[in-house]
Amino acid sequence: MPIPEQDTRPWETLADFTLRGDRSGLEEYLNQLPTAQQSLAMDRLSDDQREAVLELLDAQYAAELVARLPEFQAVDILEELEPDLAAAILSKLASNEQADLIGELDREDADAILNLMDPNDAASARRLSEYDDHIAGGLMVTEYLRYPLTWTAQKVIDDLATHADQYRHYDVQYAYLIDRAGRLKGVLRMRDLLLSSRSVSVAQYMITNPLSVRDKTTLDELFEVFDRNHFFGVPVVNDEGILVGVVHRVAVEEARADRHDSDYLKRQGIVGGEEVRSMPLFLRSRRRLAWLSVNILLNILAASVIAMYQETLQSVIALAVFLPIISDMSGCSGNQAVAVSLRELSMGLVRENEFWRVWLKEVGVGLFNGIALGILIAVVAWIWQGNAYLGLVVGLALGLNTIVAVSIGGLVPLVLKRFKIDPAIASGPLLTTVTDMCGFFLVLSIASLLLHRLV
Amino acid sequence: MPIPEQDTRPWETLADFTLRGDRSGLEEYLNQLPTAQQSLAMDRLSDDQREAVLELLDAQYAAELVARLPEFQAVDILEELEPDLAAAILSKLASNEQADLIGELDREDADAILNLMDPNDAASARRLSEYDDHIAGGLMVTEYLRYPLTWTAQKVIDDLATHADQYRHYDVQYAYLIDRAGRLKGVLRMRDLLLSSRSVSVAQYMITNPLSVRDKTTLDELFEVFDRNHFFGVPVVNDEGILVGVVHRVAVEEARADRHDSDYLKRQGIVGGEEVRSMPLFLRSRRRLAWLSVNILLNILAASVIAMYQETLQSVIALAVFLPIISDMSGCSGNQAVAVSLRELSMGLVRENEFWRVWLKEVGVGLFNGIALGILIAVVAWIWQGNAYLGLVVGLALGLNTIVAVSIGGLVPLVLKRFKIDPAIASGPLLTTVTDMCGFFLVLSIASLLLHRLV
Repeated sequence: MPIPEQDTRPWETLADFTLRGDRSGLEEYLNQLPTAQQSLAMDRLSDDQREAVLELLDAQYAAELVARLPEFQAVDILEELEPDLAAAILSKLASNEQADLIGELDREDADAILNLMDPNDAASARRLSEYDDHIAGGLMVTEYLRYPLTWTAQKVIDDLATHADQYRHYDVQYAYLIDRAGRLKGVLRMRDLLLSSRSVSVAQYMITNPLSVRDKTTLDELFEVFDRNHFFGVPVVNDEGILVGVVHRVAVEEARADRHDSDYLKRQGIVGGEEVRSMPLFLRSRRRLAWLSVNILLNILAASVIAMYQETLQSVIALAVFLPIISDMSGCSGNQAVAVSLRELSMGLVRENEFWRVWLKEVGVGLFNGIALGILIAVVAWIWQGNAYLGLVVGLALGLNTIVAVSIGGLVPLVLKRFKIDPAIASGPLLTTVTDMCGFFLVLSIASLLLHRLV
Repeated sequence: MPIPEQDTRPWETLADFTLRGDRSGLEEYLNQLPTAQQSLAMDRLSDDQREAVLELLDAQYAAELVARLPEFQAVDILEELEPDLAAAILSKLASNEQADLIGELDREDADAILNLMDPNDAASARRLSEYDDHIAGGLMVTEYLRYPLTWTAQKVIDDLATHADQYRHYDVQYAYLIDRAGRLKGVLRMRDLLLSSRSVSVAQYMITNPLSVRDKTTLDELFEVFDRNHFFGVPVVNDEGILVGVVHRVAVEEARADRHDSDYLKRQGIVGGEEVRSMPLFLRSRRRLAWLSVNILLNILAASVIAMYQETLQSVIALAVFLPIISDMSGCSGNQAVAVSLRELSMGLVRENEFWRVWLKEVGVGLFNGIALGILIAVVAWIWQGNAYLGLVVGLALGLNTIVAVSIGGLVPLVLKRFKIDPAIASGPLLTTVTDMCGFFLVLSIASLLLHRLV
């Protein structure tokens, strides 16, 4: 699969093919364009150009293209399209992709599109889109092999031959066998079907009591299920035991990766966990500002400690140089501890109530690194101002505050998790506020004690 | 799959079963223990207890347990075990897991273990472990169906029946057909085999020119391949076109998720991208200190700007309160922009050379948020000191520096990527150094200009 040299402006090439009405040229060009470049090109086209591209493509091809784009981008595109074109594209998507997109569309847009789809498909898509994205119901597909358990092996084989084209993208390692009410009764392995005697009912060859999950099973539970089993897919049943879909291992892995990405953005202060620069300016500003305004208040709170020591600072103005250093370095040390705690929590290597263990492990690192950093900053201060006591003050303050920072950084995620607050989002601001306050207090109060040696 | 109530100390339960020599009790207990708790329990056992647990378990069961643990934990455990037990466990693992672990073991430990394994298995494991983890060769499995293309359908079916047990965990949707030299010639779908006439050569039913990847294909290229195809697995060939393995979609997804996790830790200043608190104190301190020592030097550099304005600061000591606020807030604004750039780069929604576009998009957000934050801090300063000019100085400085911070934050990842430096790791420190310097300079130089109004 050769990946071509970067085209400088792939969107212009798309627009050119479209203007010329050259469908096969357009498809050929897209075939050799890496996915990331397809996203880029679609992103940079004007709304009209994008509509023209999707209109020119075969609906199946257009659907595959849309399915490869990041979800928010696909949603934006569908909302801008004429409803009939959007409906034609949506109809060609796999059921879980369909449901994801419909769930994200504005209700009005979604209704307009669904009204133009085949009524059965639309009803099914609407039902699927009501599931939350991150439970089995939201991750499952409805494209899978399902047969009444009374069928003979021959009848199943005939069905496979007849619908070969429709089943092309299915995972056909397993067929699911149901009773008359639609309840899951067994799983038939393709290999067992192969070796079966053709006139006998498939129920003879099925695995009874197969592993299944409920439609409400959460992402973490699904991950656990796949972690402990080698299956590529697991059947999903509703409260009545009726088979409603199949969730694939791959869908679970993808959903977890998406959650990680969105957690990372939240941690960096992007409220909502999603931003790309093609979003409207006002939305982007507002989401970022929501986080910044909380932070500035916390910052003012922390800095108020400095205000209480203005006289000390006035006498030893050199201290003002070290305040931001101590604030920043404590933040760095603390964030390292936060990152390790978040990781250990997510891997299950630490429990929410193991404060003592985490603290002991962190305090060792804090002591060691606090001494190293304290000595370094002390030497710098001493040399710069020629006053060993100034070195002592800032070195001692940074050393002690490093221990405080790793302790708080290590513990805050556990405490937040215990109080059911998302530790990924709240740990950072909490950490820096407390370590800043403590750091400023340490420098300035130690300096006040040794004031006669400093001036 | 019910997930049991939290056991307070699952490692003690494991140790109890082991002391009593109760293998079936131990296995039953482990069966209902969630994976994260298994990791936790194995982590908290002493080396001797852990060895006793793994020794008591059936080797196959022990292998499945080890395979579920995070890789570094599995490696640590294997290194501590007696080589013969380690070899027994390793032999039962899937080929890619085997290779990953052997690749991570100390060379001595690896040799000791490989010498105790079946010579063929050992040679194959050694060969696989030489592949880098994040290329097709390192991600592929060697458990897959492979037949000479001259075989008849009946012969293949007989083989499937004979080796049903061995093939239990294989993905059997596809069998790969090879010529005498072992070169990949076609792919046989199980469904086509099912519908085939039994006496004819399988070559008749195969898909010719199947999609394959090279053993050196990178993770990103593999992701691209799976993104554009519905296959659950793709065959891997070496330079001579000889079939050497099959890489599954799931392995690619997992490897990407691992890389994300490790990138996140690197970004937070954990050198090497991996730390858990069961690692030795000295190693943990050293890795964190490596990052901190770079940061403290950058911090001292940034703070030196303050040192140049000591006189201004002396006259208006209230400014010292605002310096850390401006430093911290600019860091926050800049990091938001860094996060969005990293995300857009990874999704391909921006190119390394699109400075102008990124800057324009960021400067809008910076202007808006800079005005909002600037007004807020100005009002606080004005009210606190009763001096509108102080408000003007800090408000103007924070507003301007917010624009600087988002510009730098947005652009730094692009620049670093262009110079082939990992933007995830280097963006943060670079950003904060520049925005700190610029922020301190803005506050103190504007204050110097307006000094007669401030005192």
